[in-house]
Amino acid sequence: MFIRNAWYVAATAAECVTERPLGRTLLGEKVVLFRTPQGQAAALEDRCCHRLAPLSLGDVEEGGLRCRYHGMKFAPSGQCVEIPGQQELPPAMCVRSFPLVERHGFLWIWLGDPSLADPTQIVDCHWNGAPGWPTASGYIHYRANYQLIADNLLDFSHLTFVHRTTLANAAFPNARPEVVPFEGGVRLYREILDCEPSPLHRMAGRFTGRVDFWNRQVWWLPSVFENWAGSAIAGGDGPPHERPGALHFRHFSLLTPETEASTHYFWIHPCEFPDGDASLIDAVGEGIRMAFDEDRWIIEAQQEVMDRSPSVKPKGLASDVALNRIRKMTAQRIEEEAASTPGHPPF
Amino acid sequence: MFIRNAWYVAATAAECVTERPLGRTLLGEKVVLFRTPQGQAAALEDRCCHRLAPLSLGDVEEGGLRCRYHGMKFAPSGQCVEIPGQQELPPAMCVRSFPLVERHGFLWIWLGDPSLADPTQIVDCHWNGAPGWPTASGYIHYRANYQLIADNLLDFSHLTFVHRTTLANAAFPNARPEVVPFEGGVRLYREILDCEPSPLHRMAGRFTGRVDFWNRQVWWLPSVFENWAGSAIAGGDGPPHERPGALHFRHFSLLTPETEASTHYFWIHPCEFPDGDASLIDAVGEGIRMAFDEDRWIIEAQQEVMDRSPSVKPKGLASDVALNRIRKMTAQRIEEEAASTPGHPPF
Amino acid sequence: MFIRNAWYVAATAAECVTERPLGRTLLGEKVVLFRTPQGQAAALEDRCCHRLAPLSLGDVEEGGLRCRYHGMKFAPSGQCVEIPGQQELPPAMCVRSFPLVERHGFLWIWLGDPSLADPTQIVDCHWNGAPGWPTASGYIHYRANYQLIADNLLDFSHLTFVHRTTLANAAFPNARPEVVPFEGGVRLYREILDCEPSPLHRMAGRFTGRVDFWNRQVWWLPSVFENWAGSAIAGGDGPPHERPGALHFRHFSLLTPETEASTHYFWIHPCEFPDGDASLIDAVGEGIRMAFDEDRWIIEAQQEVMDRSPSVKPKGLASDVALNRIRKMTAQRIEEEAASTPGHPPF
Repeated sequence: MFIRNAWYVAATAAECVTERPLGRTLLGEKVVLFRTPQGQAAALEDRCCHRLAPLSLGDVEEGGLRCRYHGMKFAPSGQCVEIPGQQELPPAMCVRSFPLVERHGFLWIWLGDPSLADPTQIVDCHWNGAPGWPTASGYIHYRANYQLIADNLLDFSHLTFVHRTTLANAAFPNARPEVVPFEGGVRLYREILDCEPSPLHRMAGRFTGRVDFWNRQVWWLPSVFENWAGSAIAGGDGPPHERPGALHFRHFSLLTPETEASTHYFWIHPCEFPDGDASLIDAVGEGIRMAFDEDRWIIEAQQEVMDRSPSVKPKGLASDVALNRIRKMTAQRIEEEAASTPGHPPF
Repeated sequence: MFIRNAWYVAATAAECVTERPLGRTLLGEKVVLFRTPQGQAAALEDRCCHRLAPLSLGDVEEGGLRCRYHGMKFAPSGQCVEIPGQQELPPAMCVRSFPLVERHGFLWIWLGDPSLADPTQIVDCHWNGAPGWPTASGYIHYRANYQLIADNLLDFSHLTFVHRTTLANAAFPNARPEVVPFEGGVRLYREILDCEPSPLHRMAGRFTGRVDFWNRQVWWLPSVFENWAGSAIAGGDGPPHERPGALHFRHFSLLTPETEASTHYFWIHPCEFPDGDASLIDAVGEGIRMAFDEDRWIIEAQQEVMDRSPSVKPKGLASDVALNRIRKMTAQRIEEEAASTPGHPPF
Repeated sequence: MFIRNAWYVAATAAECVTERPLGRTLLGEKVVLFRTPQGQAAALEDRCCHRLAPLSLGDVEEGGLRCRYHGMKFAPSGQCVEIPGQQELPPAMCVRSFPLVERHGFLWIWLGDPSLADPTQIVDCHWNGAPGWPTASGYIHYRANYQLIADNLLDFSHLTFVHRTTLANAAFPNARPEVVPFEGGVRLYREILDCEPSPLHRMAGRFTGRVDFWNRQVWWLPSVFENWAGSAIAGGDGPPHERPGALHFRHFSLLTPETEASTHYFWIHPCEFPDGDASLIDAVGEGIRMAFDEDRWIIEAQQEVMDRSPSVKPKGLASDVALNRIRKMTAQRIEEEAASTPGHPPF
């Protein structure tokens, strides 16, 4: 069960090229993405209506995508515009198309009720590759439900134990964030003054001593995690994130469920370095990649345990506040969607 | 669900040797094929009646097959003829045996009611390796239901799109065959006069210009496809297949369901070359292998789509006439078998 | 379904070290074994009670095992003794622990009702590595239910056919053992006088001629097989196993079900060589390993057949007496456990 009336990242803009279509499973549905020679990206269900061959094996042509099996050609709208050996083009010969918007370096897809697809709801991650923001980025395929990854991102007390060589900060377990729900998700604020920087912050900020650290995080329902994090030399005036010479990370983790049991994990990590020197961006990206592999290792193992013991319930700790909130809001949204959509799936 | 009262190819004759038994799944049943030192081929269920070890791990001996676990020996009839350490040979100590006929280079098995097994019903494919007919042949294992392969063979409009470098003939989608049902299947006739030969015909026939092309195909229920195809230089007198100097292919595709989800695909491709020169036979075989790999690529992908969306129905095109006919005849045969066999499976 | 009120081998003592915990599935339950710096071995369920991460990814520390995800620490008793960032330690924050006894080089676990765990019931296999008993040993992972392995060990008539190059003795099928049931299992006695030794006995005993051979075997319910086997030069006085200069094997096969479909197979093979020369121990171990691979090959194949044909019942031979007895006793024990444990699993 997923929230369907929402924008999800289907792919990076760079993945979708004219040379070949891209087949991908999103929220359990097989989708084919393609880009016409004119540059328009489109998303169709990945199944020819004739004999159900996957369109992602087909060829992109002027004005559409041609099935590789018997040669039917479909426009970005999903309508069949050519049937080899047959003059008649029955209107029923069409496949489902999905709203798709290209923005901030991503293709955002709407898999719910198309009449509700409003591009202004797309999360603002304009830092991605913007001038002055050297940006590391990556993709991880997870064999786990996206909510286990959400749990992980919403409780940073794990950093001390999972990310010893990268993100660990010994102060994390005792530095509870302020948790502020809003209609679209949850905001978390955390500040740790006068602490040892994590290995990643030390390296990226070229810090030699103690720092004042902050997170300003937003969980945007259903599955985008914004993490404005940084460090400034300990002891300066005013809030650390407003001080000149601070290290800023404008990180986004963008999760798209593949299936109930697997997830596409896109991430971008735009940085503002204290001295404006972008030369450390690759090292920062490598650190993130290592840290996220550490997460994946434990989360996929956790998923396996849960699969084997479906009736066992987690026992809560005080640090679970934010993740419990998001799980509750998610369940409520899913329920609302079900209620407002008679005979709902598929839309 | 399969038609069971029919002959299927279990193996090529050459696969079944005295040195070792051959275990194979046919129509969902595990069968062991073996050949006695005297040369008789036999087929038993591949499961010792004692503690159910597979007999295909056993040893062929004078007069039978000995289980590798506790040494029981079974005659080609399935009767146990020796129990180590035990004098008594209870009649119930036996395994099921299946009618098996060696003909035209194949072992044909009957997995239905043995009382109906009539060898005169075996499809005539005597061209296989016959004098004057250099023959290419091969085997493909398919992860797809055999009916999807049948659909493919019964609608050549796919040649233009799937087989660009081998069998493609641009005229195919517009050259509908004549479809003539008969009791045992369907015949298809197609003639394309004055066309560019496909790459395979051009090569095999050493054609330098346009040709008159024909197919005379038979689908023999349940699953043998005969395709007498060829080309003659365009513009001669009389039907192209009767003209001297024509290229003749006497192709057979022989499908045996392994399971509902997989298929054994045997094929032979006997050729008569215009100049009687057999030197091109290997190149022709290679072309067929390439083309059949192209088919497999799209059909296995199609099967995966269908597995994921079992409730989605194909939408028909005019080119589906023959395959729809065969699907209907197949369903009817299966229904008749069920009706005539009280408490039928297993026979 | 397994007998649960019994001691099973969880691991060899050497496998369980302080450096890292050992995760293992036993009778379908995920268990983590670990050894504290003081040397105490302990067994917990392999699932943190917080968010269900596997504890086997954690770290062994003074006094317990720390979860790698959020850092909770568990004592050998299963009680949580530390929660990072939280003072309160709720008593409910605990995981299940299992009785564990280290004896004769193994860690024995009790997965049933802990109040019944009586270490005096552990099978005596003190020969394992004892002075004067050079000991080969090994571990095999089986993709088969443990009862199929039990069947194999309880009917040595298979030796002639499965173990041609190792344990085969042509006299086996005709040399039925005496089968003597007792409350805890079954004893089997077999003596074959004046026979050709098996390749293994010939090699280990350096025999040049015929031998008098014996087995004195015990099947200890649920799953330990003791096999005191040996050979003496043919024709001496008194029972062969009492003659000086005989070859003695004090073999134990110790089976622990992993799941219904797989088994941990531990074995030890303490030897007394006729001349006291231990130099052949590696060669003996290699012979056992080869023979057990031969068993695994046929038994895993047998399991696959059974999985495919769950309704097919084996047909009995005279040589099945002992294995039928053990299967019956096992079923009875399982029934008794179920009856005495209201709402029994899990205990």
